[in-house]
Amino acid sequence: MNKFLGYTCSICGTEYSCTKELYTCPKDGGNLDIVLDIASIKRKYEQADITSREENYLWKYLPLLPVMDPGFEGTPLRMAGGTPVYIPKQLKEELGLRDLWVKDDGKNPTASFKDRASAVVIARAKELKSEIVVTASTGNAGAALAGLATSVGQKAVIFAPRTAPPAKIAQLLVFHAEVILVDGNYDAAFDLSVEASNEFGWYCRNTGFNPFTIEGKKTAAFEIWEDIIINKNFDDQPLSIFVSVGDGNIISGIHKGFKDLLSLGWLKHMPRIFGVQSEGSAAIANAFFKGSEEIVPVKANTIADSISVDLPRDGLRAVRAATQTNGSYIVVSDQQILKAVSQLGKAGIFAEPAGATAYAGLEKAIDSGMISPQDPVLVVNTGSGLKDIKAAMMAVTEAPIIEPSMNALKKYLDKNVK
Amino acid sequence: MNKFLGYTCSICGTEYSCTKELYTCPKDGGNLDIVLDIASIKRKYEQADITSREENYLWKYLPLLPVMDPGFEGTPLRMAGGTPVYIPKQLKEELGLRDLWVKDDGKNPTASFKDRASAVVIARAKELKSEIVVTASTGNAGAALAGLATSVGQKAVIFAPRTAPPAKIAQLLVFHAEVILVDGNYDAAFDLSVEASNEFGWYCRNTGFNPFTIEGKKTAAFEIWEDIIINKNFDDQPLSIFVSVGDGNIISGIHKGFKDLLSLGWLKHMPRIFGVQSEGSAAIANAFFKGSEEIVPVKANTIADSISVDLPRDGLRAVRAATQTNGSYIVVSDQQILKAVSQLGKAGIFAEPAGATAYAGLEKAIDSGMISPQDPVLVVNTGSGLKDIKAAMMAVTEAPIIEPSMNALKKYLDKNVK
Repeated sequence: MNKFLGYTCSICGTEYSCTKELYTCPKDGGNLDIVLDIASIKRKYEQADITSREENYLWKYLPLLPVMDPGFEGTPLRMAGGTPVYIPKQLKEELGLRDLWVKDDGKNPTASFKDRASAVVIARAKELKSEIVVTASTGNAGAALAGLATSVGQKAVIFAPRTAPPAKIAQLLVFHAEVILVDGNYDAAFDLSVEASNEFGWYCRNTGFNPFTIEGKKTAAFEIWEDIIINKNFDDQPLSIFVSVGDGNIISGIHKGFKDLLSLGWLKHMPRIFGVQSEGSAAIANAFFKGSEEIVPVKANTIADSISVDLPRDGLRAVRAATQTNGSYIVVSDQQILKAVSQLGKAGIFAEPAGATAYAGLEKAIDSGMISPQDPVLVVNTGSGLKDIKAAMMAVTEAPIIEPSMNALKKYLDKNVK
Repeated sequence: MNKFLGYTCSICGTEYSCTKELYTCPKDGGNLDIVLDIASIKRKYEQADITSREENYLWKYLPLLPVMDPGFEGTPLRMAGGTPVYIPKQLKEELGLRDLWVKDDGKNPTASFKDRASAVVIARAKELKSEIVVTASTGNAGAALAGLATSVGQKAVIFAPRTAPPAKIAQLLVFHAEVILVDGNYDAAFDLSVEASNEFGWYCRNTGFNPFTIEGKKTAAFEIWEDIIINKNFDDQPLSIFVSVGDGNIISGIHKGFKDLLSLGWLKHMPRIFGVQSEGSAAIANAFFKGSEEIVPVKANTIADSISVDLPRDGLRAVRAATQTNGSYIVVSDQQILKAVSQLGKAGIFAEPAGATAYAGLEKAIDSGMISPQDPVLVVNTGSGLKDIKAAMMAVTEAPIIEPSMNALKKYLDKNVK
């Protein structure tokens, strides 16, 4: 059953057939939304047919995805998604909330939310019989493409700026991707990947460019729907979801997932979606606050490198994710982000700064009265703290050093520990 | 139902009642085995009662653990174990094996196998109403204690040598443990933690000291049993399991799990267990090759820091895990370990050097004819490669740098990529 009907441009609304292979709108460069055959999905499946499927990972929701079953049992590609949802009791009490969950997408195969997009994009590449998938990335998206591609024998080429941290590049190389550093910035790498894609027929995974990325990312919404809204009986009040925003593709993906569920009639209330940006990289929040859908680039500078973006490639849909759901945007400082890393640590959750940004936004939303104690809240952590140990070191205070003796220990404890 | 009957010393065989709180044998310092009430477990449960329990994590096997249900739903403590088993198709073909799996314990909450031990030890600490759990560690065990303890409101104190890498210490601090650096080596930290435990009544988690650690670690054996031996119908031929060995506690834990299953009559063939050590830290392998159970300390020096151990604290049982199962020990060089990091990367699995050591051992075992093509093999990866990016950088070759233009790209591709 082919559930993929075509594309609609998010700017001009032009519709395109699925027989064309498109990235962005040929008319105005707008991001394309994938159009699913909701009517035939509805005819074929009841809600329970989906929730009772025996899969633990994002492929559980295959009937709602615009790709065929890619196979590859037992590979990281097959084991993306299905991430744990923690109940951080102490944080819930500190914040005075009745219900708080943290969904930890740092537990994906390559330790970030981006695995969801790569899994579906690679499935699409396999359908198209693309020999090579290419992307521009310095970080999580590149690792996600490299790790999942190699696991299924798909060749991947990754363009990264030569200034990218060697540690991040090492991860791409461990996954045997063809990594090519370009003597320029991320935008130069992006442009080269698109050119190479056009000229060589490589399939381009670029975030905010390839329309299938949000189809992978929307699976997080499906999991939140099943784990919280259905299984914990929260279908009578809107959930508030906090997610960090860089290029805007993750928040757009989560929004798309819930829109699909609404169209299917399987969701009563659209959750409120709150995008959180670092004040040093707030192009999308700026547009939201101006009541505009026009994204003006910034000169990004924030410790949260995974959401440090001059020109967000999926800004318009990211603004709408908040405006259309009675959500909002929130900007937080690097200091608040580092504090959030430490706060999540109390719950045994180790987030990279970009992941903790969402939690920092929740703290601010509570302070400002945007969120009330009885609002059920879910925070998405988008990446593992192990990806950025240097930032973690800035979030904590140094440990003391003592002589290895009971006397020295007692002296220290008397003075410092109640 | 109290399934915990008591302890038996692994050296002198003396039995102790469960009413005593013991660490090692009071007579000779030998590691203590926990004695379970196998007879009453057998009366109460059939095999299918266990495998059909609806839990995705190690607590699925609670009926076979010497602790009560600790509760704490929705916490990392509750979500330890249940790690994915990958089928690395390309590696299987390269090695010429019919069946190969990699169990990725880097996917545990704090990204290492050690979470299994910490989960059960903290459950035990809660039963004992211990205010504080203490351990000596620089790495994975410390992170596992810190992360899981904070998630359930259990105070943890961690002694680490002051020379420990600041990045590893940062992780402990993010999890809000009381970290105290001692001006000495790991042994000094170990001794101080034991003294503090004795004097202050703190519950000591030290690996190879606290008898409950292997009760947590044995759950990996239960998962392998259910996922492979039962679900994939490999109960008619012995599985060969490869695991890296440092202090010897993980291999002893895996052995213990299979011994429990044999006693219950739920396992036909004991798997063959292969311990793999770095040649720079091979105290246990040395004893095995001498046909001895006496462990002579070494001056350890290997890139695989998590298994770099001068004096293994669980050496005797680790030797027996191989001798009693028709397994063996294998030593590999740092060079072979780095190559294994890169090989596992091909399957999208990112292992720290200590984790990849097991795979390096498999390669050597095949070369030497110890393992035949028709032997079903499972390799355990004990920790995430994100824990040691520096080592990963040594495992890969540098990426090229080009101008961001199609001309430069074509020139590079013509020369370097077929």
